[in-house]
Amino acid sequence: MNLRIPGPTPCPDDVLEAMSRQMINHRGPEFAEILSRVTGGLKQLFQTQNDILIFSCSGTGAMEAVIVNTLSPGDRALVVSIGAFGQRFGALAEAYGVAAERLDFEWGTGADPEAVARALEANPSYRAVFVTHNETSTGVTNDLEAIARSCRRVRPDVLLCVDAISSLGSLRCPVDEWDLDVVATGSQKGWMVPPGLAMVSVSERGWRASERATLPRFYFDFGKAREFAAKGQTPWTPAVSVFFALDVALQRLVAEGIDGIVERHRRLGELTRREVKALGLKLFADERLASNTVTSVWVPDGVEEKALLRMTRDEYDVEMQSGQGKLAGKVFRIGHLGWASEDDLLGAIEALRQALPRLGFAVPEATARAG
Amino acid sequence: MNLRIPGPTPCPDDVLEAMSRQMINHRGPEFAEILSRVTGGLKQLFQTQNDILIFSCSGTGAMEAVIVNTLSPGDRALVVSIGAFGQRFGALAEAYGVAAERLDFEWGTGADPEAVARALEANPSYRAVFVTHNETSTGVTNDLEAIARSCRRVRPDVLLCVDAISSLGSLRCPVDEWDLDVVATGSQKGWMVPPGLAMVSVSERGWRASERATLPRFYFDFGKAREFAAKGQTPWTPAVSVFFALDVALQRLVAEGIDGIVERHRRLGELTRREVKALGLKLFADERLASNTVTSVWVPDGVEEKALLRMTRDEYDVEMQSGQGKLAGKVFRIGHLGWASEDDLLGAIEALRQALPRLGFAVPEATARAG
Repeated sequence: MNLRIPGPTPCPDDVLEAMSRQMINHRGPEFAEILSRVTGGLKQLFQTQNDILIFSCSGTGAMEAVIVNTLSPGDRALVVSIGAFGQRFGALAEAYGVAAERLDFEWGTGADPEAVARALEANPSYRAVFVTHNETSTGVTNDLEAIARSCRRVRPDVLLCVDAISSLGSLRCPVDEWDLDVVATGSQKGWMVPPGLAMVSVSERGWRASERATLPRFYFDFGKAREFAAKGQTPWTPAVSVFFALDVALQRLVAEGIDGIVERHRRLGELTRREVKALGLKLFADERLASNTVTSVWVPDGVEEKALLRMTRDEYDVEMQSGQGKLAGKVFRIGHLGWASEDDLLGAIEALRQALPRLGFAVPEATARAG
Repeated sequence: MNLRIPGPTPCPDDVLEAMSRQMINHRGPEFAEILSRVTGGLKQLFQTQNDILIFSCSGTGAMEAVIVNTLSPGDRALVVSIGAFGQRFGALAEAYGVAAERLDFEWGTGADPEAVARALEANPSYRAVFVTHNETSTGVTNDLEAIARSCRRVRPDVLLCVDAISSLGSLRCPVDEWDLDVVATGSQKGWMVPPGLAMVSVSERGWRASERATLPRFYFDFGKAREFAAKGQTPWTPAVSVFFALDVALQRLVAEGIDGIVERHRRLGELTRREVKALGLKLFADERLASNTVTSVWVPDGVEEKALLRMTRDEYDVEMQSGQGKLAGKVFRIGHLGWASEDDLLGAIEALRQALPRLGFAVPEATARAG
């Protein structure tokens, strides 16, 4: 199966082989070595000197960790939302009794950095800003550098918390250069590793927030994670196999380097958008902010999304993802993050080229291919 | 390495091979089939008709899930504790603002069912009772059947929440017969699967509690898990590989059947205790309640625990676990749950037989072995 969803992403053979290693003592020296090596590799790719904590959970678990470790009941936070994952950050904060005020931008567009600055100016009591770097539901990459700069200009001390789940390890996100405080990602995205681990960096500002924060927490407690990391362990039994896999994947990624990783994703993103448009399809996202990890495409009039995705999966062996939240049935998504090649993407395009006419959408002749 | 810790446990080859399967769409039909098959297998082995929910986390995450889904701030709960994991249940409840009152029993012994009944009688406002079935820190298996009967006699409606993390899949724990409400276990124990998934059964009484409970929750929300399970999914990206592995392991376990599983663990537990005593070592746990999944052993006078475990690991290739909580340095533990054979246990005993004299403890001559 050509798995073209925005995560879990396909994993290279050596990463999958590492998944099948026999168990070890998670409180012994071998695990300590792995934890140390993995943390070091992550620091390079997060481009940070901050602490990195690793939790056994999905990305949503990491988002919950970010909230419960930084805020107290009744704290006000600004949630900058451009799609379903921005909404999730808000819903999570509200579930914990945080006064989460939304700054919503139209789905398909990015957040306006100046609007974020104005919201912070208008209300100096916000303790934290939550923002999605790469919005997987719409295929938009926020201009996080500009947003972060706006935040710091108005409120140098504000805590900047970033959902970088589908950006870190794929897109440029230099944590220290952009002065990001608490930044979360997940193993099943650009990292080319199966789901099961979430990685979070915490700045000094983040640690000060966590010392003050009184939201209830235990499994996701940053303090416990740091305390155990110092002795080469995690507080609770970790997803050991995913650590084995992440260890292998990070060797590849560190060798490739940030610039190579970013360039690889840029190339695949551009290829995908060009070919999608050549099929006569319309991109959902504002192309100036189109994500290089996932492309969202309007389902053409007269075609049923479910029928299209079923046909491409069952008859052409290409698995794409349906629309999320209010985009269900309206857009579909093509993942091109992590271990993906040009051929993988061209294969997905070819499946669309063949399936769409069978479902009533005429693909422009000019794009007919020899093979 | 002969991994003789009480989890993660070694996994059979076919289970490990399943871990290295390529990723699939966690929102597609294949995952739905796996989720359905795994849930069905778990119901057989939990011996329950209750719903079973699966979370991507460790056992401690599951304990947190049990608490946040059943209680509200200020609720009173009785925490029956016989060791470090009982204490953890209490600490978790307190972290969430539950008035957790402890009924502590001496480490190494089990909970007295009559004392539990008296505590419930003395205070009719307890909403829930939390109890550890198999206390991994001390190697004691509580008489959960008697404890549950005591609870129901005094308070037929009380919510009975059980940490069965290291018992289900190894020891007798018929959830419906014993009328247990919310019962949690973890993949890395008797299930012979790597860590990463926790499985929780929820009774009708449990569901009613969850509808009333107002503790904050999102990642661990039972309601969301049930809603997504109905469509063959989990709310958040699951640890897909561990599902593959659990699917394979459950086929073995279901084929073996509960009686076979329990008998296998009984045999290994008895073997271990007999051989440990033959070495002249003393069991820590009250032998009438000694666990058939883990044996705790007093470190003999004059021997340093760390030196012993390092020597057995580095020179004899047997990994055992140190004492936990207040037993650190005083006892060590031998795991015999999951995929373990008599030879594995005899190998651990042989390592002790050879290492102990080198560290100053004379092993009785009678136990010298030919090989």
